[in-house]
Amino acid sequence: MQPFDPPQRVLLGPGPSDVAPSVLRALSAPTLGHLDPQTFEMMRVIAERLRTIFETQNPCTLAVSGTGTSGMETTLVNLIEPGDRVLVAVHGYFGARLAEIAQRVGGDVTVVEQEWGKPSDPAKLRAAAAGRKFKVLAAVHAETSTGVRQELEPLAALAAELGALFVVDAVTSLGCAPIGVDRARIDAIYSCSQKGLSCTSGLAPVSFSPRALEAVAKRKTKPSSFYLDLALLERYWHGDHLYHHTACSNLFAALAEATRLVVAEGLEARYARHVRLSNALVAGLEALGLELLIPASERLHQLLAVKIPAGVDDVKVRKALLDEYGLEIGGGLGVLKGKVWRIGVMGSGATPRNVLLAVSALGTVLEANGFRTRSKATDAAGAAGAALAVR
Amino acid sequence: MQPFDPPQRVLLGPGPSDVAPSVLRALSAPTLGHLDPQTFEMMRVIAERLRTIFETQNPCTLAVSGTGTSGMETTLVNLIEPGDRVLVAVHGYFGARLAEIAQRVGGDVTVVEQEWGKPSDPAKLRAAAAGRKFKVLAAVHAETSTGVRQELEPLAALAAELGALFVVDAVTSLGCAPIGVDRARIDAIYSCSQKGLSCTSGLAPVSFSPRALEAVAKRKTKPSSFYLDLALLERYWHGDHLYHHTACSNLFAALAEATRLVVAEGLEARYARHVRLSNALVAGLEALGLELLIPASERLHQLLAVKIPAGVDDVKVRKALLDEYGLEIGGGLGVLKGKVWRIGVMGSGATPRNVLLAVSALGTVLEANGFRTRSKATDAAGAAGAALAVR
Repeated sequence: MQPFDPPQRVLLGPGPSDVAPSVLRALSAPTLGHLDPQTFEMMRVIAERLRTIFETQNPCTLAVSGTGTSGMETTLVNLIEPGDRVLVAVHGYFGARLAEIAQRVGGDVTVVEQEWGKPSDPAKLRAAAAGRKFKVLAAVHAETSTGVRQELEPLAALAAELGALFVVDAVTSLGCAPIGVDRARIDAIYSCSQKGLSCTSGLAPVSFSPRALEAVAKRKTKPSSFYLDLALLERYWHGDHLYHHTACSNLFAALAEATRLVVAEGLEARYARHVRLSNALVAGLEALGLELLIPASERLHQLLAVKIPAGVDDVKVRKALLDEYGLEIGGGLGVLKGKVWRIGVMGSGATPRNVLLAVSALGTVLEANGFRTRSKATDAAGAAGAALAVR
Repeated sequence: MQPFDPPQRVLLGPGPSDVAPSVLRALSAPTLGHLDPQTFEMMRVIAERLRTIFETQNPCTLAVSGTGTSGMETTLVNLIEPGDRVLVAVHGYFGARLAEIAQRVGGDVTVVEQEWGKPSDPAKLRAAAAGRKFKVLAAVHAETSTGVRQELEPLAALAAELGALFVVDAVTSLGCAPIGVDRARIDAIYSCSQKGLSCTSGLAPVSFSPRALEAVAKRKTKPSSFYLDLALLERYWHGDHLYHHTACSNLFAALAEATRLVVAEGLEARYARHVRLSNALVAGLEALGLELLIPASERLHQLLAVKIPAGVDDVKVRKALLDEYGLEIGGGLGVLKGKVWRIGVMGSGATPRNVLLAVSALGTVLEANGFRTRSKATDAAGAAGAALAVR
């Protein structure tokens, strides 16, 4: 029975992203009780920093004790009562998950499917609504399965037309790219701790508008989940701190530190860093002769879906990257399994060092696996480096 | 924006308990992806060690990515379909929570209430069943709100009579006291990471018998929760590791280390340590003139409910313990709020040092708050010390 000694990876998959040393130190600081005044102070500060990053005034902003999917479920299980009409824009794996959870919690769900790799089209959603009113319109801002960016403004306008609460999945955008919750008239939003915020996984930031909270307060039935009951979570976080569950102070300390790093860097600077590093990575990947799945105009900077060249063994390449270079990139999900790699340029992992490593290691492994790269791995890294010099 | 620097507490409340240094170190080891082969290896080993501690052969043994309450909800949301008859033994706060969640997930719930401070009476449960069959019989093994121990064998026999799956809450017993899942014919059990296992909170060990899994497989409807869907969790843990949620490798590393410490100590030795330390604490508390809520024959060793003496200010005493000694003990829950303190003697926190500190600090604070302790704090600590000498 030896203790585990996890190796140092470079995490360039779709998340988790690289965790900063100060966040890992915060994680291992002494444990506090879930009702300790110092824990409450951490919660207050986390909520304040999340409001800054979400760009919202919503008092009901907190972190659910679970992963991003628990944030998705918290949002839906509290807003949807059995029989409520829900319109879901599906253009990838996580849109489909949204629809699935909306159905499980009893929603009368209308799914509007868009080909994976394109953003959803507001006109198609409007047509599917067919003049009916909806309780919720839900969409994914940054679709992690394809790397496509969804424009939020047109959907917010549609939600207003439909009398619907506008629900947004920001799992892969929070901390990487601007969201502007209040500006975009979002009523409920959820994310995760381990991507753009570069904390470990285990917490799901959520934020609800006063209008969304009113809808929760007007429910005729209790949410089917007690663990994710928003009224109880809100009371524990921002009310009289009544015990609801034994929240983990260590995760709170880590998220407090991770959000501190985000706010200290500044949102504009952080987003600009993601754009610059992503562009450099794209320059390197293209120099290798690889193609991106999504055209530049609709592409996420923080998550790139790269087409796997014909004849190249997906699993073999990712295994070589992990075993030889300790470098993690992601495989494809759902219909894109075996067809794309997903490379994250997120948070603390979005560094010049990681970009050069990704290009040169991927190039080297591809060459070793019989793929004729357009430029040599070293030249492609040079292309990425040249792009990095553009500020 | 200063980083937080959480103080070193001594955690003698109802949980979290003190976390061993090696567990905190494991927590802050480098983060791995949720699909990293080394993460899968940690999961395999965690499951194996949990089986040892649960004393079960159940292949379906894993840790849910949430706190103990998420374990409770996982168990109920998967076993209960809307309309299923559920019999719940309620003799404290957590029994009531069991009943509440069983209702939220659609169960046709029969609640049998027992006065708080006593264990549930199988005869009363049998009478309430009134000859009907039930899908589930659920009870709390170690009721954290009162410190009472429930005998499991008679309830297992009753479950068999009712044709019911036997569901047990072991949140405050796993790692502190014997459970013997297979011996006690338990079909589904859940616990937490932060009490008897002395990890941080954030993971909920669960185990399901083949019979319980069969009931899950036979469901006509999907569980209302996707996040806690057992079939998906089981596939991620023990099947082809299909992505379900982004589990936290840092929490896994910490739980792997915490369970390693439990298995290395040995179950018998660990339980004996809890008995010895608890008896010493009781000797000290009684020397102070304090009374325990629960008679020795029905009392948990790992969690003592101590009556707050008349005229003593609950909150003031706990605040003084925390502020002056960094010592956390718990207040009362529900009807016992303001009436009892709850002192945990759990896992890594169950040490002679902590017992002496608890007795002498509590005695000192009580004396300063006008309570005439039977013996001086120092003498009471001596009584605890003398009890510690008995092995």
